[in-house]
Amino acid sequence: MTYFLKDLAAQLATGSLRARALVEECLAAIDRPDGEGRSSFIETYHERARAEADAVDHARQQGWSLPAFAGIPLSVKDLFDESGSVTRSGSKVLNDAAPASSDATVLARLKAAGFIVIGRTNMTEFAFSGLGTNTHYGDPRCPFERDINDRSKGRVAGGSSSGSAVSISDGMAPATIGSDTGGSTRTPAAFCGIVGLKPTTTRMPSQGIFPLSRSFDAAGPMANSVSCCAILDSLMAGGNGDENPPFAVKGLRLALPKGYVFEDLDPHVANSFAAAIDRLSTAGANIVDISLAEIEAMRPSNNTKSIVAAEAYQIHKVRLEAGMGKDYDPFIAFRLQGGKNILASEYIEMVETRKAVWQSVQAAVRGYDALALPTSPILPPALSSLTDTKSKTVESARSLRNTAISNYLDRPTITIPCHTAGSGPVGLSLIGSRQHDRKLLAIAGAVEAIVRG
Amino acid sequence: MTYFLKDLAAQLATGSLRARALVEECLAAIDRPDGEGRSSFIETYHERARAEADAVDHARQQGWSLPAFAGIPLSVKDLFDESGSVTRSGSKVLNDAAPASSDATVLARLKAAGFIVIGRTNMTEFAFSGLGTNTHYGDPRCPFERDINDRSKGRVAGGSSSGSAVSISDGMAPATIGSDTGGSTRTPAAFCGIVGLKPTTTRMPSQGIFPLSRSFDAAGPMANSVSCCAILDSLMAGGNGDENPPFAVKGLRLALPKGYVFEDLDPHVANSFAAAIDRLSTAGANIVDISLAEIEAMRPSNNTKSIVAAEAYQIHKVRLEAGMGKDYDPFIAFRLQGGKNILASEYIEMVETRKAVWQSVQAAVRGYDALALPTSPILPPALSSLTDTKSKTVESARSLRNTAISNYLDRPTITIPCHTAGSGPVGLSLIGSRQHDRKLLAIAGAVEAIVRG
Repeated sequence: MTYFLKDLAAQLATGSLRARALVEECLAAIDRPDGEGRSSFIETYHERARAEADAVDHARQQGWSLPAFAGIPLSVKDLFDESGSVTRSGSKVLNDAAPASSDATVLARLKAAGFIVIGRTNMTEFAFSGLGTNTHYGDPRCPFERDINDRSKGRVAGGSSSGSAVSISDGMAPATIGSDTGGSTRTPAAFCGIVGLKPTTTRMPSQGIFPLSRSFDAAGPMANSVSCCAILDSLMAGGNGDENPPFAVKGLRLALPKGYVFEDLDPHVANSFAAAIDRLSTAGANIVDISLAEIEAMRPSNNTKSIVAAEAYQIHKVRLEAGMGKDYDPFIAFRLQGGKNILASEYIEMVETRKAVWQSVQAAVRGYDALALPTSPILPPALSSLTDTKSKTVESARSLRNTAISNYLDRPTITIPCHTAGSGPVGLSLIGSRQHDRKLLAIAGAVEAIVRG
Repeated sequence: MTYFLKDLAAQLATGSLRARALVEECLAAIDRPDGEGRSSFIETYHERARAEADAVDHARQQGWSLPAFAGIPLSVKDLFDESGSVTRSGSKVLNDAAPASSDATVLARLKAAGFIVIGRTNMTEFAFSGLGTNTHYGDPRCPFERDINDRSKGRVAGGSSSGSAVSISDGMAPATIGSDTGGSTRTPAAFCGIVGLKPTTTRMPSQGIFPLSRSFDAAGPMANSVSCCAILDSLMAGGNGDENPPFAVKGLRLALPKGYVFEDLDPHVANSFAAAIDRLSTAGANIVDISLAEIEAMRPSNNTKSIVAAEAYQIHKVRLEAGMGKDYDPFIAFRLQGGKNILASEYIEMVETRKAVWQSVQAAVRGYDALALPTSPILPPALSSLTDTKSKTVESARSLRNTAISNYLDRPTITIPCHTAGSGPVGLSLIGSRQHDRKLLAIAGAVEAIVRG
């Protein structure tokens, strides 16, 4: 089932759909014996969701005034606090942590708008990889080339918000919230054929979200359309769920940042992206190739010294030094240790450089409405190819290669499916300007109508 | 000559004082053969200041409209950019740097208000010590126990803004701007018997100021009265130089943060401070002793790992690694190296801890209008006692012990002389709330009228 928030809200409001029926549909999708529910959720709230749905239906029947999205199920990545639940962030290390005493601000806002939390979704442990696999809670598989009868087969859902993405693609929820530090909403969205947004970091309150890197983390929505993401983004940022006025594709100024983000593309990714750009061009968009030295300077290297590595290590330092390293996924523990030996002077310099890069990039791209590039250079890696830390490191780096630039630049970025139905999943990313998230969403809505297969 | 800005502005406006005469008075004070002019200024602008003063006088005679402070000399610490001048920050290392291409924002604002820059003042090299001595440009001496005939005798002016403070105390300028990272406006102000303000860091634009520690630096005014500092603070922050409505001492809620900042006080400091507090109490202030665990946790230790050390090292890293260390004052090079081995994880943790401390201190002191404490626990150290890096390290740490807490807490703080005339210089510091700098200045104006000897 492919859900759209505006349609659901209208059907619920008129009574043509009951919240209980919608919740039952989502629970049934989660509970399908041959489905991905078990690997996509760490915790589900069957009875609570049913009770809340019944309460919504009862209130509607009485004619009481309800929030606009009352009764729509929402899945929540395991790193958002919800009052009374333990926030594990996909780990076993935090199993004994105290339950959260309040909701993360972005979650509280969605609940205030009427959403019903249906469960906590699986994710890369502590959100620190682009694959979305999890040694503790299972490996959610993306819909592409999934073998219903053989769990050892299939491709990764992308990470870190893997369970969230599959919960949308498989009809387990009409809406979900993830977080994005290097591509964690966009890579799984691209791999699962849905829409995912990384907002400007400071647009979203970070309160109540287990951090990976405080300078880079941004909570973001994932759903079946740009419209759905625009609604969720508005609510999460404290707005009232309004959508944006449409933006014309005719005359839209798009720049393709040619360079390494266009190198080594899977042929299907390259062809699908090129076809989407052709359609946009035919529709009247002005599309130019540009070259940005600042982006080329971000080309991934073997140098593990990064702001994210330093901040992630600091967050886990006490646990790692207390000998809890063995309770981490060895791949994640390996990644976290990468930040151990970064010096303060190196970190400060990276932070200063990043701010300067923001300014020069903004000066260089001021004349364009957005940048466009393939969300991921590759199709989702096969689970069977991920045999050890080395293969996971390589594939995670490839999965996040193109998405990570938006986090470094802290520019809002949205991925939209642009492959033809049934073919391998390919996302087209649009990168907007810092704090101009709503303009990006307006552009994305127009682009989606053209590029979506 | 003790200058007050409001009086000077009035005299200049009515024509009872000419700008040229005022500039000549200041230049004469700088040029006194037995004075501190040579050690207090790195560069002076005799002819430019005279020409600007003549232009002001001419304009006034024509009846043209002029900014409120047109014609008043201003001395400027050597770390503020002024278009066309080399910013040396008290070093020899930057002698070959290009002249600044624009004025530091705070300086541009003061010049727009009519101030005439009379020269660049000496300072601790790169602002990294509380003594104010400088191996390259000389050691300004504070007015106390200064021996006119023997330059080897006397006491330090306090640092880092030593030349700025002496330029005020010795009538070489009615106004000056310094910067404060650990006490660099307040310690020299206290040692020279004048008023000095450390604003909230983000209140003052940092553009065009050679940094020591970007998280701690704050440009601040120093002058002969709270009123003068309030005028300068307003202008530097983009205001129009207005003063504050008076604040009543009767009912003023002052807290004394008893703990290490009241330990090991020089007896004259202790007596002068206690007498000032008695006068405030008699005038109706409500004064209570409190104990703040957060301040006690700042007690200086042998641990050199601090946010300032990390940021200062990063700023000088390239020069130090390029072998320019020998061109630094050995004492300063030694201090800068202290930040070399701090890890990124340690730095990030210190930054996070600092933010948490801000919140808990604010919760603890919300019921008081200000905290009061002695600006420095000691009288200015004798220059003859500073024989090596070790003695300088010890005396600098003592000089800044009490001031540094305000930088860590990023609370605006002002020092007001409270000793009896002719006795050793003692400053009484008032600490306000973050971003409530103008309330602090209003309180300080009322307190000054009571405590000043």
